[in-house]
Amino acid sequence: MQQRFPSPHWLACLFLVCFATVSLHAAEPLASWNDTAAKAAIIKFVETVTDEDSVAYVPPEDRIATFDNDGTLWTEHPMYTQLAFAFDRVRTLAPQHPEWKTQQPFKAVLENDLQAVAASGKKGLVELVMATHTGITTEEFEAIVTDWFKTARHPRFKRPYTQCTYLPMVELLEYLRANDFKTFIVSGGGIEFMRPMTMEVYGIPPEQVVGTTIETKFEIQDGKPVLMRLPKIDFIDDKAGKPVGINKFIGKRPIAAFGNSAGDREMLQWTAAREGATLKMLVFHDDAQREYAYGPANGLPDSLFGTFPQDLMDEAKQSDWVVISMKNDWKTIFAPEKD
Amino acid sequence: MQQRFPSPHWLACLFLVCFATVSLHAAEPLASWNDTAAKAAIIKFVETVTDEDSVAYVPPEDRIATFDNDGTLWTEHPMYTQLAFAFDRVRTLAPQHPEWKTQQPFKAVLENDLQAVAASGKKGLVELVMATHTGITTEEFEAIVTDWFKTARHPRFKRPYTQCTYLPMVELLEYLRANDFKTFIVSGGGIEFMRPMTMEVYGIPPEQVVGTTIETKFEIQDGKPVLMRLPKIDFIDDKAGKPVGINKFIGKRPIAAFGNSAGDREMLQWTAAREGATLKMLVFHDDAQREYAYGPANGLPDSLFGTFPQDLMDEAKQSDWVVISMKNDWKTIFAPEKD
Repeated sequence: MQQRFPSPHWLACLFLVCFATVSLHAAEPLASWNDTAAKAAIIKFVETVTDEDSVAYVPPEDRIATFDNDGTLWTEHPMYTQLAFAFDRVRTLAPQHPEWKTQQPFKAVLENDLQAVAASGKKGLVELVMATHTGITTEEFEAIVTDWFKTARHPRFKRPYTQCTYLPMVELLEYLRANDFKTFIVSGGGIEFMRPMTMEVYGIPPEQVVGTTIETKFEIQDGKPVLMRLPKIDFIDDKAGKPVGINKFIGKRPIAAFGNSAGDREMLQWTAAREGATLKMLVFHDDAQREYAYGPANGLPDSLFGTFPQDLMDEAKQSDWVVISMKNDWKTIFAPEKD
Repeated sequence: MQQRFPSPHWLACLFLVCFATVSLHAAEPLASWNDTAAKAAIIKFVETVTDEDSVAYVPPEDRIATFDNDGTLWTEHPMYTQLAFAFDRVRTLAPQHPEWKTQQPFKAVLENDLQAVAASGKKGLVELVMATHTGITTEEFEAIVTDWFKTARHPRFKRPYTQCTYLPMVELLEYLRANDFKTFIVSGGGIEFMRPMTMEVYGIPPEQVVGTTIETKFEIQDGKPVLMRLPKIDFIDDKAGKPVGINKFIGKRPIAAFGNSAGDREMLQWTAAREGATLKMLVFHDDAQREYAYGPANGLPDSLFGTFPQDLMDEAKQSDWVVISMKNDWKTIFAPEKD
């Protein structure tokens, strides 16, 4: 049987197909972005690399996008979230460590003296991390982190740290994935501090999280294999470590990379040096009212967390890296608080 | 308009749906496996963990399967493929190194004396790898490896090493992925030696390859960022290193793990200790005619490559790990040679 004209069924099918297509696109992508150059740059890039007729077409398996976390996907002030976690761990463990009352940097933490902690330098910070992040199994650490994320609150925004993520960036992650990008976190933060929350918060599974690692050791404890977290840094995924981490963990060069500080410079350089179209963006914190403003390009002192020196701004301009102004490019910073 | 009975269009649609379903399942999974206990164990496990009504159901995002490479997915005799590559590199680079004519282990390689290479021990092997795998950029190394895979041939099977993969294991990878597993390689082999071929050969993308790594360093050379491969081991992904590598790179515990030697013991223990159903399998090389037979459980001396001591066989039996007999469980070892 052959029919020359569309039957009502055929029309119904067509309607369903159209309807399905429309509803998939009903939620406007990047809805929390203002219609500025930053948003236009993202859309132009994605449309170009996904257009099979474009010379800049990139097949889905090579659509790798890497995101810094602190200051790029979520708030890093008044201090890195992981440092807030370490501070809370020091307070929790203090009764077992009476010596901390007089010993830096622990004394400073117990006295809530951020300047004194900072004065202890990198050595002090490493000591803090080792005392609070190691000597337990990976499973124990995961449970502690998971529990902390449930209870801890950001001191200014009074909401869980997992809700101090930037809505426009979460939309960007979703927009890229809807266009068959594979999204990775490439952060200086601890890989095992991030993994318990990245799937729920960013839609990024643990195996797509690259970060700083500490050494672990396989042991049999009471007949059960465990991985003990040793007080030794294995790899620092920051600055020149970011391309190293990308190469080690991902093994492909990103076509899009997103950061917000001097720690992301080499990741953006590494991405930019790829042949073909690439997108490099830096989130710039210039919104003291809705979030934070810091750094010389704001006419403010540089920041301990998320340093954005003038020469990074200069390099961004010279290299066609897109600087995202939180103040001007984002309609909204955070999603409404969830219960 | 409402119709009570299926119209011809409706039937045509139904037919199309059925046809599409049938054609998806037309190729019998695990076709190169004999109908023995090993194949039954695989199918039973997969059907159980994918059955939403089963207490052992595992959601897709947790269906992580890890595979050793040498001796599990491809041939590791008469020597590891990567060692054959290193030997070829020594021969290629020898004119620039006249001192190698008298210096071990290079002299032994140039004289094709595998016993003497072995006698140089771990120190000698590390020297070989450093001399042949480092001092160049990651891109240069990738190009060399890619080129070598095109030209090198296995000495016995006279085909590219990339065609010395086990067809039943490639079918197993496909079967698992068809059931929404994410398949990873977790090998003692060099991560950057494997990545150029794993997608084509196993359908496993670079970001799902875990292996031994050497240190790399980010540098700007002639204004272009590169990663230099340094003569220093970063991480050895073998034995107790395998659970460490799995935790570091994947961040989730496998529910299925596949190996073939003492180097895989801890990976299988780590997998077995997960709560819920798990599958642990060891490929046993007992087929001298079609591939190789080695190890004490064959009544043969233990092997330099892919050691399978008697106590591993004992542990497998005690722990319900499935031992795959290449001779009895596999209809075919290799796919027909491709041009």
